[in-house]
Amino acid sequence: MKVAIIMGSDSDLPVVERSFRILKEFGVGTEVRVISAHRTPDEAVEFGKNAEKNGFDVIIAAAGKAAHLGGIIAAVSIVPVIGLPIKSSTLDGLDSLLSTVQMPKGIPVATVAIDGAENAALLAIQILSVKDENLKIKLREYRKKMAEEINEKDKEIQQKLI
Amino acid sequence: MKVAIIMGSDSDLPVVERSFRILKEFGVGTEVRVISAHRTPDEAVEFGKNAEKNGFDVIIAAAGKAAHLGGIIAAVSIVPVIGLPIKSSTLDGLDSLLSTVQMPKGIPVATVAIDGAENAALLAIQILSVKDENLKIKLREYRKKMAEEINEKDKEIQQKLI
Amino acid sequence: MKVAIIMGSDSDLPVVERSFRILKEFGVGTEVRVISAHRTPDEAVEFGKNAEKNGFDVIIAAAGKAAHLGGIIAAVSIVPVIGLPIKSSTLDGLDSLLSTVQMPKGIPVATVAIDGAENAALLAIQILSVKDENLKIKLREYRKKMAEEINEKDKEIQQKLI
Amino acid sequence: MKVAIIMGSDSDLPVVERSFRILKEFGVGTEVRVISAHRTPDEAVEFGKNAEKNGFDVIIAAAGKAAHLGGIIAAVSIVPVIGLPIKSSTLDGLDSLLSTVQMPKGIPVATVAIDGAENAALLAIQILSVKDENLKIKLREYRKKMAEEINEKDKEIQQKLI
Amino acid sequence: MKVAIIMGSDSDLPVVERSFRILKEFGVGTEVRVISAHRTPDEAVEFGKNAEKNGFDVIIAAAGKAAHLGGIIAAVSIVPVIGLPIKSSTLDGLDSLLSTVQMPKGIPVATVAIDGAENAALLAIQILSVKDENLKIKLREYRKKMAEEINEKDKEIQQKLI
Amino acid sequence: MKVAIIMGSDSDLPVVERSFRILKEFGVGTEVRVISAHRTPDEAVEFGKNAEKNGFDVIIAAAGKAAHLGGIIAAVSIVPVIGLPIKSSTLDGLDSLLSTVQMPKGIPVATVAIDGAENAALLAIQILSVKDENLKIKLREYRKKMAEEINEKDKEIQQKLI
Amino acid sequence: MKVAIIMGSDSDLPVVERSFRILKEFGVGTEVRVISAHRTPDEAVEFGKNAEKNGFDVIIAAAGKAAHLGGIIAAVSIVPVIGLPIKSSTLDGLDSLLSTVQMPKGIPVATVAIDGAENAALLAIQILSVKDENLKIKLREYRKKMAEEINEKDKEIQQKLI
Amino acid sequence: MKVAIIMGSDSDLPVVERSFRILKEFGVGTEVRVISAHRTPDEAVEFGKNAEKNGFDVIIAAAGKAAHLGGIIAAVSIVPVIGLPIKSSTLDGLDSLLSTVQMPKGIPVATVAIDGAENAALLAIQILSVKDENLKIKLREYRKKMAEEINEKDKEIQQKLI
Repeated sequence: MKVAIIMGSDSDLPVVERSFRILKEFGVGTEVRVISAHRTPDEAVEFGKNAEKNGFDVIIAAAGKAAHLGGIIAAVSIVPVIGLPIKSSTLDGLDSLLSTVQMPKGIPVATVAIDGAENAALLAIQILSVKDENLKIKLREYRKKMAEEINEKDKEIQQKLI
Repeated sequence: MKVAIIMGSDSDLPVVERSFRILKEFGVGTEVRVISAHRTPDEAVEFGKNAEKNGFDVIIAAAGKAAHLGGIIAAVSIVPVIGLPIKSSTLDGLDSLLSTVQMPKGIPVATVAIDGAENAALLAIQILSVKDENLKIKLREYRKKMAEEINEKDKEIQQKLI
Repeated sequence: MKVAIIMGSDSDLPVVERSFRILKEFGVGTEVRVISAHRTPDEAVEFGKNAEKNGFDVIIAAAGKAAHLGGIIAAVSIVPVIGLPIKSSTLDGLDSLLSTVQMPKGIPVATVAIDGAENAALLAIQILSVKDENLKIKLREYRKKMAEEINEKDKEIQQKLI
Repeated sequence: MKVAIIMGSDSDLPVVERSFRILKEFGVGTEVRVISAHRTPDEAVEFGKNAEKNGFDVIIAAAGKAAHLGGIIAAVSIVPVIGLPIKSSTLDGLDSLLSTVQMPKGIPVATVAIDGAENAALLAIQILSVKDENLKIKLREYRKKMAEEINEKDKEIQQKLI
Repeated sequence: MKVAIIMGSDSDLPVVERSFRILKEFGVGTEVRVISAHRTPDEAVEFGKNAEKNGFDVIIAAAGKAAHLGGIIAAVSIVPVIGLPIKSSTLDGLDSLLSTVQMPKGIPVATVAIDGAENAALLAIQILSVKDENLKIKLREYRKKMAEEINEKDKEIQQKLI
Repeated sequence: MKVAIIMGSDSDLPVVERSFRILKEFGVGTEVRVISAHRTPDEAVEFGKNAEKNGFDVIIAAAGKAAHLGGIIAAVSIVPVIGLPIKSSTLDGLDSLLSTVQMPKGIPVATVAIDGAENAALLAIQILSVKDENLKIKLREYRKKMAEEINEKDKEIQQKLI
Repeated sequence: MKVAIIMGSDSDLPVVERSFRILKEFGVGTEVRVISAHRTPDEAVEFGKNAEKNGFDVIIAAAGKAAHLGGIIAAVSIVPVIGLPIKSSTLDGLDSLLSTVQMPKGIPVATVAIDGAENAALLAIQILSVKDENLKIKLREYRKKMAEEINEKDKEIQQKLI
Repeated sequence: MKVAIIMGSDSDLPVVERSFRILKEFGVGTEVRVISAHRTPDEAVEFGKNAEKNGFDVIIAAAGKAAHLGGIIAAVSIVPVIGLPIKSSTLDGLDSLLSTVQMPKGIPVATVAIDGAENAALLAIQILSVKDENLKIKLREYRKKMAEEINEKDKEIQQKLI
């Protein structure tokens, strides 16, 4: 059981790293790659075609601007592909989002929010949990902790603003 | 192994039905529901909380405008939720898309294209295929057939436009 | 007579605090809470369901991105809900705005401008003034003061730019 | 206790009429007016200035394009103003929405969805219910009926799609 | 022959000042005012109604967000009104632009680019030049100088980049 | 005293004709031309360069998509140019609007609403009225008639919806 | 000397056919293909890799929604690729446009207007004319004819609207 | 064989310079000019009309806001024009992009991404390579180097994130 995180450019790393940290925290084996749909298309196609054979159950594809990485990987593999649109220097990420999510009929890319790296990882884990009961337990714990943090903040602010 | 398709309004049915047809074609057990995050919030929360227990492995949530259905279900369940933004009468579906995909940190919704009902179903099947080898075989066949249809059209048009 | 201000994340506080200051200035009892539609959905639903019983006449719900907080509270309560869309790091707040204002038929959220915290508070006060003559007097004074400040600036600039 | 519905053009009537029907259904006294912020500005200002004296507790202002009607009424009255952006022939209503909701600091307009006429009426009723217990009862009944309709549709579709 | 520059908030001054400088450079009498369509609506209406009588031939109205200042002045005066949309902190000025330019049938506002303060002044001067031959001469000189500056830059860059 | 209406394509005529009717109604001499910034650039430049000499006081330039007609005319003439963005088949007129209004520093185009043909004509008349008292009288009458029409509609609807 | 026109779906044919007609009119050898970046990725990559060898000097790639066809062909070939974004059923073509034009550094796609099929063909011809003087002559004639048609329309309308 | 890079303002130089560097790296003769469609329209028209005669095979036109430079040059020349939209201070470059790419039927501008200076140069080189085999060799080497850089980054990150 293994997840691949691929990014179109190493400049995406500061965002993508947050996906990696969460997958590690959940104990999910993760491989991180820099593969560009446009500058290394052969590697992209090859990676996608071998993803299943290489034991990947889910692929997270992070890319910005005309973000085609998720689409091309999804086109050559039946492994579920999570699209992580990266906000780039123009148009505030709208280009990345639309290029990732508006996939035509036949080849879905499961898209999360612009720069939503944590959610890309959590979605990967939820998908893996379909076959791994242990991850379900961890997900419930993670959510519980998240709720507790919010409740903690809630108390702090109630005391602060009176 | 079962998929739920829930829609925020019965007016979404013409779109949502295309998801149902594909899931049926793949032989995946599917339950279709009309549940509104806003008009029947109790049913929405209850549905989400019991989804796992009731045997759903994936949930497709279709909604338009300020489309909160996917978000609220995802918030109360760790079952993967696929968000299907429905194009409504204003803003060409941009509102539905952003309300579905831009989920904050912690609770992902796997979003497909606006009115992308076929892809919502195919993504659900890809997720299920993580644990069901049989679905992988069917997915590969489905893709092959899709490619053949394109190739057929390719030939027709080459003969037509000379 | 009491107003609740709830925010989806404590990071919204710098904006939300401006609502709190105005309500305090008008002498309106205010409770400030951190409750997330997605990370603490049970608290959100519970808060909404008990809002009327707990004496809240108006609720201000501040949230960013796929901003569902106002919508979910409005769905489980008939207390008027004011939606305050918070500008987040992508899309310049358009996602927050559309997720808040484009509510489907049946459940309104009274939406103010992105980051329009002062107006959220003033709208709450105007709603309360429907039953409280004293607040009407204070509102008229507040507006008068606002106009005087503008008139003051008007004089300054007329002298400055000649 | 009375609500005013004003619209910038009589061409807005097909949308605005849906607000009127709901207010009538709830037994709320309603006056419907055609007043344009731009073509009859004197009437607009006069209407706003006298709204309180004339017994209006809430004003619904419907307008399209550069929709200033809600803003100008709100500027001359402390009665809560609900802005109803009307979708016009260009830009899919985005112009109407932004012109209505993005009010500057000091003068809020409680904005509902583009063409969200029912919600404008329901919001007006929720505001009035702050001082009228009877309307609260009717609102709860209305919501119950809405939920029942959804539940009915839910059953129908479950039987239809098996 | 006189131009008025009015702005909705003194925070618009850094932009608006660029209009003032150009009008001064052309020797056109200019009065600068802070008047808010929302916070000082009476002053706005009064200013507009008396503009003709007070000798203003053109009015530049600068405002941001739901920018109604140009619209309300134009509604109560037949003096040509130039709308200068000010970029504010959200939506990158799109709200200001649409609120200013999308005026309904009957009351035009001559809109220039977001933060286009120089062009607002130049447009005012072009309008005045319809009756003032002297301004035509100055406009031709101004344009000539502008062209020379570009030509100068052209030469510099040709030498720089070889 | 004369106005030119130029359009980039004869397909713009149904919109542009509404400008022509109003100018005729006001008794303003009007010449209507089809000149394309892109397909007949020489004619466009020549028209602009001779506009002043040929007695035009105002030019209305109507164009869609990447609407450069107003800009190129304004670049070669100091006659005030009114830009009328025409809604074309894609992007709902946003492209036409931005191409017309977002002119860089130095060369303004006085932009009206997308398809706002009546306002283009009225703005032209307001500009001419700067030197023609007779047009001022007609403008006041026109506005009065407009207000009366609204007031008439107001009465009708008040009687209709009770 | 040969041009390829490839489209992502045969439903794009009504638009794409307009490119074909113009290339035929100019006597340029043209091959029309249906190849999908997502449904027939192998054919897309193979087509791109062999394009140069197969004698194509320019490739026109037409696709809608998350339009990756131009990008993937451009990534595997150094033949100039013209991207023709097709307007699809949602978002008015903005998704197609941004997915096509916003290519990351290294791999350009020469993008024309949404549904701009004629311009895609004309751009291809202009590129070919870099090495073919005969096409230059034809282009000049084509432009001349275009200008004459506009001039004809100009005369008609001048006679019609007096 | 020569390329022209023209920019609408010398403030575009930091972006445009990146085009120049790449063309130089490929040994392509390049002339850089500052010419404004609006402030120096005569120079723009003259430059375009003489471009072919002066030996330019491709023209890169960089401009921001209502970016008409590419369009006007393309209108007076049959030399292929590459439009490089420059991100300016408002609207995040959407105005520049739409003004450049949405050209009407007849006159194409080959548009690259907002601020996509490298791609403008590479597209120019690809166009020139249609007649220059030597550039094809250099392009293949450039792409190979690009791919190697990505592969290098890929290895680094794989070692870094384990």
